[in-house]
Amino acid sequence: MDVVCLDLEGVLVPEIWIQFAESTGIEEFKATTRDVPDYDELMQQRLSLLSKHDLNLANIQRVIAEMAPFPGAKDFLDDLRKNYQLIILSDTFYEFAQPLMQQLDWPTLFCHRLKVSEDGQVVGYNLRQVDAKRKSVQFLKQLNFKVYAAGDSYNDTAMLQEADVGFLFRAPDKVVAEFPQFPVCTEYKELRSLLDTAARG
Amino acid sequence: MDVVCLDLEGVLVPEIWIQFAESTGIEEFKATTRDVPDYDELMQQRLSLLSKHDLNLANIQRVIAEMAPFPGAKDFLDDLRKNYQLIILSDTFYEFAQPLMQQLDWPTLFCHRLKVSEDGQVVGYNLRQVDAKRKSVQFLKQLNFKVYAAGDSYNDTAMLQEADVGFLFRAPDKVVAEFPQFPVCTEYKELRSLLDTAARG
Repeated sequence: MDVVCLDLEGVLVPEIWIQFAESTGIEEFKATTRDVPDYDELMQQRLSLLSKHDLNLANIQRVIAEMAPFPGAKDFLDDLRKNYQLIILSDTFYEFAQPLMQQLDWPTLFCHRLKVSEDGQVVGYNLRQVDAKRKSVQFLKQLNFKVYAAGDSYNDTAMLQEADVGFLFRAPDKVVAEFPQFPVCTEYKELRSLLDTAARG
Repeated sequence: MDVVCLDLEGVLVPEIWIQFAESTGIEEFKATTRDVPDYDELMQQRLSLLSKHDLNLANIQRVIAEMAPFPGAKDFLDDLRKNYQLIILSDTFYEFAQPLMQQLDWPTLFCHRLKVSEDGQVVGYNLRQVDAKRKSVQFLKQLNFKVYAAGDSYNDTAMLQEADVGFLFRAPDKVVAEFPQFPVCTEYKELRSLLDTAARG
């Protein structure tokens, strides 16, 4: 039995901050690491915005609860889990992901945590570890699993590299161009077929 | 977010070989490591029995498909997965566990594999690794998770020892007596309460 590691946002569900920006109408939440390359600076900016707009964790979770996985994502996972062990490796936060994980029947998720005050304000965040996606794949390989991985973005490429076989799924053109070593696909059926072929090899 | 590692047989589902013995009426399948302490010898004996009774993998899976998780196990897991990441650590084989995992909504399972011939005969087995349960907990801790574990038997005690907190669940008296360091419980509600208390600590 092999393990499939999948990124969450962009692969199974929409980008949470982008959707959050659209749901709240607060455009500044759309900034990503492309706009603010330093992750901590970006997160501090987001935390300030939350505070400025008086959005606490419950408000955010209510918005996220209205989001849905991409069409086909649930069926893809339901089917995948019959033949592979699935672990979702994400740089999001458990507190954000939970409403979406529920819609996907609670697959195992390795990600990070927010710091939340007693009255429900988001006051900071805890990265579980640096380079968490790559390290998770490394650990699964040390447990003698074959590991296949798919992701869409720069923060996935170390995981794809570490995996026995890695795939880019719905990746932006510039990621595809910069990482020509990873097979590319855009549909769940294609990804499943690539995974099965890799697993048979 | 913390990880809970649970043993499968005896904790969430009945002992598969015992149930298999009862379903097939072939008493010899009831032998366990208590009767044949050498695991490989025991497995070779089981494989001979399968061959003797002309039981191939499909036959076995059909019998296992009629088994069900323990009453309350599914609800316990459904609820647990809202608050913890769940990984089932078992010394069973994927080919046996699948029908039961389906009934539990496909939680992530780390176990072993059978060797199956092209015509579906079970001809051997592959341990994914020696001391697999303990090593899995060790790696999860290296990924900076707090790990809580529960099991019922001798092959779980290394995992319980390695975890941040370990619990014996429905363990035989002699296991409880030999390992007094692990809190003991017999009901899912109790186990959940012990896990929550440990996680708050």
